[in-house]
Amino acid sequence: MTADSFFAGGIGLATLNARGQCIEAYYPEPQLQPEADMLRDFFSAAQLEQDTACRLLTRDQVRACNNSPRLAELAASEAWHDAKRGLIVTVIRRDRPLTSVAESYLKLHLLSHRLVKPNAVNLQGIFKILPTLAWTNEGAIEAGAINLRLREARLAGRGLHIFALDKFPPLLDYVVPAGVRIADTARVRLGAYLGLGTTIMPAGFINFNAGTLGPNMVEGRISQGVVLDAGSDLGGGASTMGTLSGGNDTLISVGRSCLIGANAGIGIALGDNCTVEAGLYVTAGAKVVLQAEGKTVRARELSGRDGMLLRRNSQHGYIECLPNSREFALRAELHE
Amino acid sequence: MTADSFFAGGIGLATLNARGQCIEAYYPEPQLQPEADMLRDFFSAAQLEQDTACRLLTRDQVRACNNSPRLAELAASEAWHDAKRGLIVTVIRRDRPLTSVAESYLKLHLLSHRLVKPNAVNLQGIFKILPTLAWTNEGAIEAGAINLRLREARLAGRGLHIFALDKFPPLLDYVVPAGVRIADTARVRLGAYLGLGTTIMPAGFINFNAGTLGPNMVEGRISQGVVLDAGSDLGGGASTMGTLSGGNDTLISVGRSCLIGANAGIGIALGDNCTVEAGLYVTAGAKVVLQAEGKTVRARELSGRDGMLLRRNSQHGYIECLPNSREFALRAELHE
Amino acid sequence: MTADSFFAGGIGLATLNARGQCIEAYYPEPQLQPEADMLRDFFSAAQLEQDTACRLLTRDQVRACNNSPRLAELAASEAWHDAKRGLIVTVIRRDRPLTSVAESYLKLHLLSHRLVKPNAVNLQGIFKILPTLAWTNEGAIEAGAINLRLREARLAGRGLHIFALDKFPPLLDYVVPAGVRIADTARVRLGAYLGLGTTIMPAGFINFNAGTLGPNMVEGRISQGVVLDAGSDLGGGASTMGTLSGGNDTLISVGRSCLIGANAGIGIALGDNCTVEAGLYVTAGAKVVLQAEGKTVRARELSGRDGMLLRRNSQHGYIECLPNSREFALRAELHE
Repeated sequence: MTADSFFAGGIGLATLNARGQCIEAYYPEPQLQPEADMLRDFFSAAQLEQDTACRLLTRDQVRACNNSPRLAELAASEAWHDAKRGLIVTVIRRDRPLTSVAESYLKLHLLSHRLVKPNAVNLQGIFKILPTLAWTNEGAIEAGAINLRLREARLAGRGLHIFALDKFPPLLDYVVPAGVRIADTARVRLGAYLGLGTTIMPAGFINFNAGTLGPNMVEGRISQGVVLDAGSDLGGGASTMGTLSGGNDTLISVGRSCLIGANAGIGIALGDNCTVEAGLYVTAGAKVVLQAEGKTVRARELSGRDGMLLRRNSQHGYIECLPNSREFALRAELHE
Repeated sequence: MTADSFFAGGIGLATLNARGQCIEAYYPEPQLQPEADMLRDFFSAAQLEQDTACRLLTRDQVRACNNSPRLAELAASEAWHDAKRGLIVTVIRRDRPLTSVAESYLKLHLLSHRLVKPNAVNLQGIFKILPTLAWTNEGAIEAGAINLRLREARLAGRGLHIFALDKFPPLLDYVVPAGVRIADTARVRLGAYLGLGTTIMPAGFINFNAGTLGPNMVEGRISQGVVLDAGSDLGGGASTMGTLSGGNDTLISVGRSCLIGANAGIGIALGDNCTVEAGLYVTAGAKVVLQAEGKTVRARELSGRDGMLLRRNSQHGYIECLPNSREFALRAELHE
Repeated sequence: MTADSFFAGGIGLATLNARGQCIEAYYPEPQLQPEADMLRDFFSAAQLEQDTACRLLTRDQVRACNNSPRLAELAASEAWHDAKRGLIVTVIRRDRPLTSVAESYLKLHLLSHRLVKPNAVNLQGIFKILPTLAWTNEGAIEAGAINLRLREARLAGRGLHIFALDKFPPLLDYVVPAGVRIADTARVRLGAYLGLGTTIMPAGFINFNAGTLGPNMVEGRISQGVVLDAGSDLGGGASTMGTLSGGNDTLISVGRSCLIGANAGIGIALGDNCTVEAGLYVTAGAKVVLQAEGKTVRARELSGRDGMLLRRNSQHGYIECLPNSREFALRAELHE
């Protein structure tokens, strides 16, 4: 067994449903390419075989964890010895399509712990595998059980509040990346990659497997698969066209030091130093007048170019692309 | 007394203010056209007369409920025997303008339990009747009392968090419709109608008396009175013009298999299989060039038509309507 | 010592970090130009000297507060005698650039208590002074300590939920202005000024040092420094261009009885009785055709004018300004 022969691993605290199945897992210290001694720890603690992806520890296995310093702290918690929760050891040998909830959560943790970048980990099958859960002030609850829990709480005079009813939880219930601000935590999903110095305002949104390399200002929506490079600002309500629902088929990205204005949108990739005028949506199929070259092209032909200023000519209504003469820079004090 | 002579009924758990008035009510099993024996149950338990709309049960009446199997479970809860809460029985003979808080909440429950569709129940007067409440981790609190409660909580070292300060509560504090996802529960009000397979992303919003027939993807805002038929996708930040404030006077709707692009908006109804280009707002008064017919009309004349592709011509800036050649379909795995 | 010689003062409940520093403070009754006897109270209780801006009270000083009726209630709380919290007295002689967390929070409270209007108080340096905190169901926690707290809570089987991870907290954790509605409390920051009768829908947002004079309908985003005068409606997703990040350099404002349509935006100030068409973003540099005067000007030359109807001509794609013939009025029942 060599360290680099395994893609990732982690010890997690899992919530179990009535059938004893893991419905979500929290990994405080996920590992990318775990070192050999850590891997040995995982395997011996869980009595895993090398081809086993994950294992929920039995009570006996948890007790035996005192021999493993990495597991001992987690194992010491009495809270994890009941029927609704368990300690889980997950190791992933190869980065292949997803096969379990525990594995899916581990990969989402890898992204949010900045161990892998968006689009660099295989998340195939994630919608079919993840159950819809209610994330509440009383923990994660299966969707099918929530109405009864709501009724019980009301009858007992307790307030049961549901923050999200979704396949993906709010990021900050699991991982708090260093050096970021998130004004409204309901708008960033676990699996988002937030670079150092990222500030997300209330109209911002970051999906799983998407994010910023930091520092960045995010007041618009970053769709699944989309990444903003350092120094770019996605204005209030701005849209980055996605590929999951109602968008197109090409993953887009944004380079460095771009400014996408408020209520603007992009259906193409931007290189570095681009500006999109507030309110303009540049779809891939739109025709764009290149003033400098005296010709008109489809926007998708400009995809990824540096130094573009894209705007709608206010007198004639056509979309035009000019050389971007203004250099955009974030205000440092908003991203410390 | 015949079953169909009554519009609706329900037994609820009510929060009372300092004057003993019902300020909100939770009905776990609201009934549309309750059957005769259920109606008898309601009336006998509450010693209601036939023309009485709702009654807060006295302690004696609650004790007497043990004879009524439907009330017994609720009555068994000690939590509802104190000064701040009570059991309430509400029956509505005719669907008329609203007269009480208890009746208003019952009608909102009917919508969210999918027992009546939007625009099919009389909600006249709702803004004047519903009090503004603070929905908090310590339950519903009258707006006038909240500053003192905030101060008391701080002095006691407790965190009192207000989720909403509004006339309408978050849907999921009251009803969790089966087969839906809501990424940010602050953005869907009680009274929203969510069809099976509806997914609401963080930028989505559904007002009371509005919704989706399902399955649908909702990343934009569904205004009061607006309904999306099955298979349609309202893109990120997209707007459906409302009639309550700042909109126009005509309730709009969206047919089947439509795609309203991100940051787009509609001030007219759409039939089936329509596409509105990302970023385009089609107001009712806008002039639209019908390419196929060689003429120009006001958008309102196109209201409700099937198979339209609406976009702004990127070279000339006018709005045009073409036959929609692409068939839109949701991705099934996002709506299971 | 004369009353008018001091700008503001307040007694607050402060959260302390591990080094005993104030990281946030709640002032239930902040005072603008405190009266002489109140000032004497502040100074004697805290043994402040006249040039001292704020002081965290020692246990002995808190005990001595029983002589001061204003401090007695706060001092009576045992919760504030521990290592994590303290009573704080803050007086500000002159309205100068910020020097401390306690002073910053006092000024933000002044705004939200409607004691000073936006742009009427010196907030220079606020981003550098305010620490990033996690506002949670267990109170305010320093950003650097939150991952450990999250882990501890999970191990203990408790749900620790973070509402915001930011320099600015949600308004309603500190101040609940009378006569307002806020559908999603995550979207209004402490320091927002909300006039009587302001209704904020889920897509609305109000930054610190910004707001409404009331009554107003807010379904769009009010950037730092921007103020809406009474009777105006900011439509769903509408943008007011800011000056902090990615906007321009001029603070904008909106007059009375304006309607800014859904998904519209303004980079210029509006006078009274203006309408901006849904979906139109008027940047300061856009060229606008003045139909009545037969000429074309930059939008910034129209900044602050009354009675404009701004729209994009749907047939020719240029932006035009016409006399606004429709008088806009809010619906009273939405703003009581």
